[in-house]
Amino acid sequence: MSIFDLVDIDSHLAAALGTELDDVSQIFERQLASEFSAVNTLSVHVARYRGKMLRPILVLLSGLAVHRNSDTSLLTEAHRVIAAVTEMIHMATLVHDDVLDESRIRRGGATVNALHGNDMAVMLGDYLISNAFHLCSTLGMPSVNRRLGEITNTLCEGEIVQLHHREDLDVGEDLYFSIVTNKTASLIGACCEIGAGVSGGDPDVCESLRCYGRDLGIAFQITDDLLDLMGSQEELGKSVGRDLDMGKLTLPLIRALDQSDESDRRAIAALVKDRCHAQLRERLLADGWFDSAQQTAIDLVASARRCIGDLPDTPAATTLHRLADGVIDRRF
Amino acid sequence: MSIFDLVDIDSHLAAALGTELDDVSQIFERQLASEFSAVNTLSVHVARYRGKMLRPILVLLSGLAVHRNSDTSLLTEAHRVIAAVTEMIHMATLVHDDVLDESRIRRGGATVNALHGNDMAVMLGDYLISNAFHLCSTLGMPSVNRRLGEITNTLCEGEIVQLHHREDLDVGEDLYFSIVTNKTASLIGACCEIGAGVSGGDPDVCESLRCYGRDLGIAFQITDDLLDLMGSQEELGKSVGRDLDMGKLTLPLIRALDQSDESDRRAIAALVKDRCHAQLRERLLADGWFDSAQQTAIDLVASARRCIGDLPDTPAATTLHRLADGVIDRRF
Repeated sequence: MSIFDLVDIDSHLAAALGTELDDVSQIFERQLASEFSAVNTLSVHVARYRGKMLRPILVLLSGLAVHRNSDTSLLTEAHRVIAAVTEMIHMATLVHDDVLDESRIRRGGATVNALHGNDMAVMLGDYLISNAFHLCSTLGMPSVNRRLGEITNTLCEGEIVQLHHREDLDVGEDLYFSIVTNKTASLIGACCEIGAGVSGGDPDVCESLRCYGRDLGIAFQITDDLLDLMGSQEELGKSVGRDLDMGKLTLPLIRALDQSDESDRRAIAALVKDRCHAQLRERLLADGWFDSAQQTAIDLVASARRCIGDLPDTPAATTLHRLADGVIDRRF
Repeated sequence: MSIFDLVDIDSHLAAALGTELDDVSQIFERQLASEFSAVNTLSVHVARYRGKMLRPILVLLSGLAVHRNSDTSLLTEAHRVIAAVTEMIHMATLVHDDVLDESRIRRGGATVNALHGNDMAVMLGDYLISNAFHLCSTLGMPSVNRRLGEITNTLCEGEIVQLHHREDLDVGEDLYFSIVTNKTASLIGACCEIGAGVSGGDPDVCESLRCYGRDLGIAFQITDDLLDLMGSQEELGKSVGRDLDMGKLTLPLIRALDQSDESDRRAIAALVKDRCHAQLRERLLADGWFDSAQQTAIDLVASARRCIGDLPDTPAATTLHRLADGVIDRRF
């Protein structure tokens, strides 16, 4: 299922972007094809992991949104290659995240680590990272390589800081937002920024689109955390309750711990320590911490939309606004 | 301890290269420095992992060896950056290899996975790979990014094929040499090739140096395998017998299985299956398979030296020849 089945979009633009995304998929698959069957057997799983292509879509839409019209003939091979690169980086993080989180299920099927062991999953992630950088270097645009290298450095830092603070009940909101920005939002922001930059967008427009992507990315991660807390495996097609199992604090829990009196804090801490999913979920809902986090995601989406308020009024810009709203409804 | 304490080298060249290597180390450390203390705490281990800097030395020596004299003022910042990049890629493979091999000891100390868990080790390896590509992109030489990207793709393919053939007693010599070339020798060859290329070496000289590095790399891996089979943890400062434990076939064992009659083959296979280290070691020694593999390494070193037979007669070229001989004595 494509995002465009879920978000209202100009039908002409949807059809044209569909063609572009097919090209992006071909670039992606051609890059990963190996002379070794053992490698191809492993890469097959990546196709199964691929979801709604949010990052490639943001590269393409941002590449269009800087123009006065949304004619997709304005998109170049560089946009499509960068779109494939960002998807490959994202896939690498999913494969290694599943190792870190010991997840067994993703998109309704077994994870690579569950099927082939942690060692194969580590190597598949490495193969994806390496191919992402290699593919990017075929563009001959050193500035794009450099920018994406900065982003993946940041992404790793976010993950390491998060791992470091497992089981740490003193993680505050500032640290939470720093982690989420680094490990999730920075790449989404870069997709928008680079897509616009390759189209020759002015630096301030590229920066506006980066901020849009960053805020959308943080909102996305908050709703992802809320779904992990509240959703079911059947609904989401992946393991749920993993954040708590892995000792990762999420926004509603951080607020509950931070803003409760001492006895409530102790009670909540005990539920975390004992991994009492159901009781914790009930308490966070009843005390309004779920709604509070949800409201922050809504505010971030509004902020994301403000960032791109000055874009020319085109179907591409309209779609960026609708994608932001879609994060809250969590239609993708 | 530096390689130059172990290999006989012109004292003027050794001193000059020592200064260059200090600069390479500074570039390496500056690149990894993070604003997050959790990241720096983890990176500290990398300094401990670093050994004799073989790959940076090969970049620098190859950069000199294309000239008619070995004046290190001929080396540029690009050589030093590329030297740091190759060391960072190598460190990433060590960190992830230790996860794959479940190793507990490296260079006389606990591995990152032993100290901080597999998840931190996976992320540290990712941080190193990402920083290697980022550092490389700061050069603004897309062809170097592209070449190193090809090499790391190959390196991952070699690891995946090796993992795929764990416990496979039918691995033949061709497959063994393909795996070793891809996972070890290709990077060493690229160090020589790129070092020469950045100095403006002719394509055929760069290719000769690549072949030198490749053959030296294969010889290096064979002796590494032999040490894992025959050495002691005290001597090597790392876990030994891991190849057998992890079901990885090495050259003496492959030859023993391939060239023995059916009843001997069954006996050897049983020793492998039951992880009978001592008996297997004795048998491979007694039947001459250890010597046979050792001889192949000696032949490869001779081949490596022939590849660079036409280089100008300079201290840099002489050192490349001595380094090759050092692989056999395994003085580093």
